[in-house]
Amino acid sequence: MSDKTDALEKILEQESLFHGKYLHVERLGIQLKDGRTGDREIVRVPDAVALLPVDEDGTVHLVRQHRPAIGRTLVEIPAGLLDDGEGEEEAAVRECEEEIGYVPRKLERLISYAHAEGYSTGFITLFLGTELDYTGRFHFDASEYVEQVKMPFGELFDLVEKNEAVDSKTILSTLLCAHRFMD
Amino acid sequence: MSDKTDALEKILEQESLFHGKYLHVERLGIQLKDGRTGDREIVRVPDAVALLPVDEDGTVHLVRQHRPAIGRTLVEIPAGLLDDGEGEEEAAVRECEEEIGYVPRKLERLISYAHAEGYSTGFITLFLGTELDYTGRFHFDASEYVEQVKMPFGELFDLVEKNEAVDSKTILSTLLCAHRFMD
Repeated sequence: MSDKTDALEKILEQESLFHGKYLHVERLGIQLKDGRTGDREIVRVPDAVALLPVDEDGTVHLVRQHRPAIGRTLVEIPAGLLDDGEGEEEAAVRECEEEIGYVPRKLERLISYAHAEGYSTGFITLFLGTELDYTGRFHFDASEYVEQVKMPFGELFDLVEKNEAVDSKTILSTLLCAHRFMD
Repeated sequence: MSDKTDALEKILEQESLFHGKYLHVERLGIQLKDGRTGDREIVRVPDAVALLPVDEDGTVHLVRQHRPAIGRTLVEIPAGLLDDGEGEEEAAVRECEEEIGYVPRKLERLISYAHAEGYSTGFITLFLGTELDYTGRFHFDASEYVEQVKMPFGELFDLVEKNEAVDSKTILSTLLCAHRFMD
C-alpha cells in the first residue's frame, strides 16, 4: 500500500482482525511523520453508489427502509453496493431499477465521497438520474424489505432542511441539486 | 432495543462478533415485515462532532491529516469523537481548540447525520463556529499528526465543487454555509 501513503503517515504493517460476511476489520500499524508509531482499526467495505431519480415534473422517487444499525426507518434515495467488476454508472442504473422500478435515460455524476474516512475504506458516488422510464423490474435482496415513496423535490428539500432526512447520500444529493429543481 | 425498531423490521437477537479497541462488530438477527429473517453485521462506534470555523474576514480554519483507511491525506474541518458524557457543543468547541487553537464564541448547529447507515451506528453533528478567539492550546492524541491550513471560504467551496474535498462532513458543512459566506 506504499503508493497510497504519504509523508504525514506511513503504513508499516497490516493485520486482519475479523473477517465477516460483509465487514472486514484490519489493524494498520502506522508511523507518523515525526517518528511516533500507532495503530488504526479500519473496516474494509465495498464501495457504493446512490442515485437521486427525478421525474420530468420534479417528482423524486425514494425508498423507505429500515436501517437496524441506527434503529430507524429512513426515506432515502436508491443506493447499493458495487458488484464485482461493475462500473459506477451501471451499478447506479441497476440499483435504481431494482429499488424503484425506473431506469434513468440520463445520468449525471454529482460527487464521490468517503462516508467514514476515520475508520472505513468506503466511498459513495452520487448521481442525478432524469428522463425516467418505468420498467417495473423490481428486484430486492433476499433479506431486504423496501417500500417506494414519491414526493415533489421541494418536499424532499424540506425533509433535509428540517434534518428529518438523516443519511448523508440523500442530504448531499438534495443539496447539490437544489438549484436545479427549486424555484 | 424494541423501542428503536419499527414495523418494517424487528431485531430478534444481537451477538458480539468482534471487540476491538475502537471498533465493535455485532450481528443482528432481524425479521422483516413479511416474516422473512436475515442477518446484519454492524459496527458500533462513538458518535462524532465536526465544526466549520469561519473568521470575521471569511477565512476558514482547516486541518490536514492522513486517513489511512482511505489511503489519502485530506484537508478537513476539525472533528472528533464525543468523550463519555460530553455534550455535542462542548465536544465541538474542544475539538476546535485542540486542532486549530481557536475557540468559537458563537456556535450554530447545522445538521446531524448517519455517516454509514447501512452498517454503522455512527452519527456526526455539524456546527458552524464563528467569532473565533485564538488560545493556541493545541492538543493532539498521542498517535495523531495534524497540520493547520487556512483559506478563504470561496477556496474551500471550490475544493468541494471540484470534488477535491472528499469527506462528508467538510462537503456538507461547506454546502450548508455557502449562502452565508459566498457573494
